Amino acid sequence: MSPAANAVLDARGAQTARREHILDAAEACFVRNGFHRSTMQDLAREAGMSPGNIYRYFESKEAVVLGLADREHERGCVLIEEMERADDRRGALMSILERYFLQASREMALLRLDLWSEANRNPDIGAMVARIEDEARSWFVETLAALATSPDCDPGALYAAMSIVMKGLVIERALSSDYDPAPGVAQLHALMEAGLAGRLPSAPSPGKEPGR
Amino acid sequence: MSPAANAVLDARGAQTARREHILDAAEACFVRNGFHRSTMQDLAREAGMSPGNIYRYFESKEAVVLGLADREHERGCVLIEEMERADDRRGALMSILERYFLQASREMALLRLDLWSEANRNPDIGAMVARIEDEARSWFVETLAALATSPDCDPGALYAAMSIVMKGLVIERALSSDYDPAPGVAQLHALMEAGLAGRLPSAPSPGKEPGR
Repeated sequence: MSPAANAVLDARGAQTARREHILDAAEACFVRNGFHRSTMQDLAREAGMSPGNIYRYFESKEAVVLGLADREHERGCVLIEEMERADDRRGALMSILERYFLQASREMALLRLDLWSEANRNPDIGAMVARIEDEARSWFVETLAALATSPDCDPGALYAAMSIVMKGLVIERALSSDYDPAPGVAQLHALMEAGLAGRLPSAPSPGKEPGR
Repeated sequence: MSPAANAVLDARGAQTARREHILDAAEACFVRNGFHRSTMQDLAREAGMSPGNIYRYFESKEAVVLGLADREHERGCVLIEEMERADDRRGALMSILERYFLQASREMALLRLDLWSEANRNPDIGAMVARIEDEARSWFVETLAALATSPDCDPGALYAAMSIVMKGLVIERALSSDYDPAPGVAQLHALMEAGLAGRLPSAPSPGKEPGR
């Protein structure tokens, strides 16, 4: 490769590294002070950059948040590829969910909570959250349909039930610094197994025995 | 009663009504703009009062939030008294949860989400949220213990599982204006029934049949 081409690649690598560095700083800032309270100046200070310089990488605070969401999305894609390659896709899915929720930091949960809270008031954030929700639903419903072990499995209803538990887990994690997610992850696991087998727990109707 | 005593009672009634009016205005303001963005001036404007006058009722924005939480707590107490009086306490508990989550407005869910988000950054709000969490846990654990139909029921574990679902329901409600909470409420109902009967779903361990 020509020295010129090398220089271009080096510059691109440095730019990517700088973007990553800004995203890390933004994450720390948002967790500490909240999305709404943080300014581009705060993000620049946290990243050790001049306020003017940060705008070369992100044009606004919303662009930073979108960058954070893209990064999380890419990380999710890596996990999904890992699952697609596994022989036991069902086991792989559960182990990904386990890892995700057992290792989820309180910081990540607080960031997610902040995004949800902001989604209602900031149209850009709202559109992003809606897109993430839609993508997750499509992917899960398709995956659960492929993993179903019974024709009675309703992948849409199963995902809706799992989504409630996953969101609840994020809140519990955000609210308490010493939260133990293990029982909640086991609850999610049990729900998935029951749903795939077509035995999604349903509320007993009057006169019907609980649990059928 | 003397005219003086009547006048005192009237004044108290008017003061209570004015506080209620401010709390309603604050709720609308917080839902629309978020807790953090709203100022005491905004609350006064929404309530149709002078900025100076509102401080006669609440000394700070935090005091307004505490007032909102107290009001929700009192409403909860009314529901609980209703349940305590019912012959079928288990049916009454479920019907209260159903009413609460089926009728919960998106506004209420957004307000709750905002409080959770703020709890990490504002010590007053954090302490209030922690107190609400503790009170809810104590009350539920005691009530579930009294309603258990099997010695295998673990009221603490059951409440932890129900709490995840209840929090997840609030998030789903907050995120989507056309969310149908009925399946989630049925999920909560099924979980409670299973837990009271000592059959709280647990994750299958390797080599064990799902669902035992």
